[in-house]
Amino acid sequence: MKTTAASFEEFSPAWSQKALAELRELVGFASISTAPAHTGAVRGCATWLARHLRGIGLDAVQVFETPRHPIVYAEKRVDPARPTLLIYGHYDVQPIEPAAAWTVPPFGARIRDDKLYGRGASDDKGQFFVHLKALELLLSQNGPLPLNVKILLEGEEEIGSPNLGEFIRRYRRLLRADWAVLSDTNLLSAQQPALTYGLRGSLAAELTVIGPRAELHSGVFGGAVLNPLQALSTLLAALHDATGRVAIPGFYDPVRAASAEERAYLRRYGPSEAQLLREAQVAQGWGEPGYTLYERTVLRPSLSITGLRGGYQGAGVQSIVPARASAKLSFRLAEGQDPHQVEEQLRRYLRRLTPPQVQATLRAQLHAPPYTVAPTLPVMQAAAQAYARGFGRAPVLQRSGGTIPVVSLFEQHLGIPTVLMGLGLPDDHKHGPDEFLFLPNFWRGIRTSLFFLRRLGQLTSPTPWLCSSSTATATRARATA
Amino acid sequence: MKTTAASFEEFSPAWSQKALAELRELVGFASISTAPAHTGAVRGCATWLARHLRGIGLDAVQVFETPRHPIVYAEKRVDPARPTLLIYGHYDVQPIEPAAAWTVPPFGARIRDDKLYGRGASDDKGQFFVHLKALELLLSQNGPLPLNVKILLEGEEEIGSPNLGEFIRRYRRLLRADWAVLSDTNLLSAQQPALTYGLRGSLAAELTVIGPRAELHSGVFGGAVLNPLQALSTLLAALHDATGRVAIPGFYDPVRAASAEERAYLRRYGPSEAQLLREAQVAQGWGEPGYTLYERTVLRPSLSITGLRGGYQGAGVQSIVPARASAKLSFRLAEGQDPHQVEEQLRRYLRRLTPPQVQATLRAQLHAPPYTVAPTLPVMQAAAQAYARGFGRAPVLQRSGGTIPVVSLFEQHLGIPTVLMGLGLPDDHKHGPDEFLFLPNFWRGIRTSLFFLRRLGQLTSPTPWLCSSSTATATRARATA
Repeated sequence: MKTTAASFEEFSPAWSQKALAELRELVGFASISTAPAHTGAVRGCATWLARHLRGIGLDAVQVFETPRHPIVYAEKRVDPARPTLLIYGHYDVQPIEPAAAWTVPPFGARIRDDKLYGRGASDDKGQFFVHLKALELLLSQNGPLPLNVKILLEGEEEIGSPNLGEFIRRYRRLLRADWAVLSDTNLLSAQQPALTYGLRGSLAAELTVIGPRAELHSGVFGGAVLNPLQALSTLLAALHDATGRVAIPGFYDPVRAASAEERAYLRRYGPSEAQLLREAQVAQGWGEPGYTLYERTVLRPSLSITGLRGGYQGAGVQSIVPARASAKLSFRLAEGQDPHQVEEQLRRYLRRLTPPQVQATLRAQLHAPPYTVAPTLPVMQAAAQAYARGFGRAPVLQRSGGTIPVVSLFEQHLGIPTVLMGLGLPDDHKHGPDEFLFLPNFWRGIRTSLFFLRRLGQLTSPTPWLCSSSTATATRARATA
Repeated sequence: MKTTAASFEEFSPAWSQKALAELRELVGFASISTAPAHTGAVRGCATWLARHLRGIGLDAVQVFETPRHPIVYAEKRVDPARPTLLIYGHYDVQPIEPAAAWTVPPFGARIRDDKLYGRGASDDKGQFFVHLKALELLLSQNGPLPLNVKILLEGEEEIGSPNLGEFIRRYRRLLRADWAVLSDTNLLSAQQPALTYGLRGSLAAELTVIGPRAELHSGVFGGAVLNPLQALSTLLAALHDATGRVAIPGFYDPVRAASAEERAYLRRYGPSEAQLLREAQVAQGWGEPGYTLYERTVLRPSLSITGLRGGYQGAGVQSIVPARASAKLSFRLAEGQDPHQVEEQLRRYLRRLTPPQVQATLRAQLHAPPYTVAPTLPVMQAAAQAYARGFGRAPVLQRSGGTIPVVSLFEQHLGIPTVLMGLGLPDDHKHGPDEFLFLPNFWRGIRTSLFFLRRLGQLTSPTPWLCSSSTATATRARATA
């Protein structure tokens, strides 16, 4: 643990040991939000967090009930004239499957070679805990906080935040702030900080093809009745052309073309083809011609079939023409695209392609617009400066291919931008076995958050938010930032 | 149960009630051969059958072990100078999926409106039981049987009879016979008997497409890595052309064209377009242009995707690029096609189409050649006469689109033809929910079998078998029969 020990030096050894012990307690909760058997662990984690927030001196701590898992809230209001930061995190975690692939207990919070292992250690417990520890340090000093803070910790992020939108809408006065910060994205590497300014949006939907009223004998009817599995395969195949482009008419039309400067920047500082292939553990890339692999995952939209089922799935043979088949579709949307418009384009295309012998139905499950924030915003510049001091190195600007629906909820209901102050590593096994938090970055993260909070306190009049997705100028500004 | 009651009249009420109770016991066994959890029920059914065969007076009853499910054998040798009939049946059944679609317990053997409901009631328990009941009646009369009989009841038909070929090869002296009879095909309708002279062959195989080593995050990698579900869909879509023809090169080349006479006969006596659509419960047909729906299912080959799986299949959304996907394929082969040759054609085509980013593997699970028997054979004429007496109406000649691999095994190892004396209905939901046996035809079937056994006893010198599939002349003879 030499690096960790070295990182301790700027904090008192006693405080650091206590902070690490608390982090291990937090990671020890098996707060898997999707598993009904873990409901108690999710609640236990919420209770622990509420107690902890009170303990470090925050006010108005409350555990809000939702139809499923609770939301933990806390605040510290120091001066209405000062700006307010909303700190968001999620304390729920992914399932541990495949459980047998873990080499450590998933909720043991074991430390080995500067890494704290555990489900949720990076996603998102270790990342949001950084801000709580920075607040604790500020609150333990003489004098008030440099700004107002509100804390919102959710227990349903890994199941798509089904109750968060309603909560934010209902409590939008309580949550009112100037900016939000969310630490649930990646650095470029352990030493190279990165500030994320773009996220892809998402449209998730399930396509079901319905054929005969009941399963038919494939000997008796095979060749005379259209098989819904075949109709589904044909529809799915028609969603891409042979080059790897999505074939839905009009799909790419609204996508805002990145400037040459932005593309050059991303090529220079983003992951290389080799790095992406290594991370994916595949030998060859694939996708839309004319773009690098990194561009395909952050600047361009994509469509993944995430699940497929129909007919007989057991061992051996069942001789049937099945009655129905379905596929789960996950679109990632680029700047300019609207999930509802894409849904409509898909519906129109499917209507055109579906043969008359079967019926195709589409059920949309998630609409999250793409998100971009201008790196020129003062709050983004404050974040960049904080990284530079916390890590001793200026951050690289990056886009992420993932989707974080809460940023759109903050945009929609609170009208504020979110700073994506990621602290994870690209290879820290989030959602996989042996997830870990790289501890040196836990301490660097606390320092970064300290600088960030202080710097924001100096921004007495927050600039109105210029969401770059609304102006081409902002896009250019971002690309050259 | 008025029709049933009427059908009882030719047998004594006490005997009929006992036969029906026995049939319900037989249908009550959940002898699903493909499900390991049902191994005990399969064995229980075999034991029950062995006891029953002893009980009705058959000799040499034996339960033969195989690597999976047992084979039940029995015989009655009356006179080496008389001909011998091998009666085949299978006591295993299909899975009950979709289980929720049943309106009766699948193994409850419930009776409603002349129908005995239960998985296997028609396929094949009710159909082979007819011959056991006919034998019981003959054996209970004074005097010996009119011919020698051998009984072979299999427990693996629904999983492709993996051990039957080896059993027949090994015990071919024990099984030596002049003809076989197998009741596992359909009548044309409840009142119109039919004698089947052709079966399609079958090739069953599982196609698996393997992509990334592990599931990937669809946000991080979607658009840059080929999704195996998409690759699978594209391969499956390429197996048919837009008109409904199988698109595998060379697939149709060896198919023997039916004569104009045969096609005219099938058009005249076979099910109409409307009847087939009604039976399938679909509004529109589909398939190879230039052929009627009936021709598509009996004279022409076909390909059904019987199962599809891959990725996340649970509720909601999991944001992944899955690691693998697979499909179950079921070919039905027409006269002239060879299952091994079709497998090779498919492998070649898949090799050509599979993109380099994924790997496609094909595992063949069943090879059964098509089968045809000349309706001019004396044994077929005896069957036709028996139907005419049992049902009061001469049978129509028909082809079936299904596959019964055992007929090829009898042809190959014993050198004998099989009479397909079907008693099922086209709409009795074989392989689907609410399968039933139409009870009036159970009683008519027993009468038909009685006439058949007596008539065969008079054929003292069986004609050498003329397998029509080997001569064009025979095909013509059949078509005009």
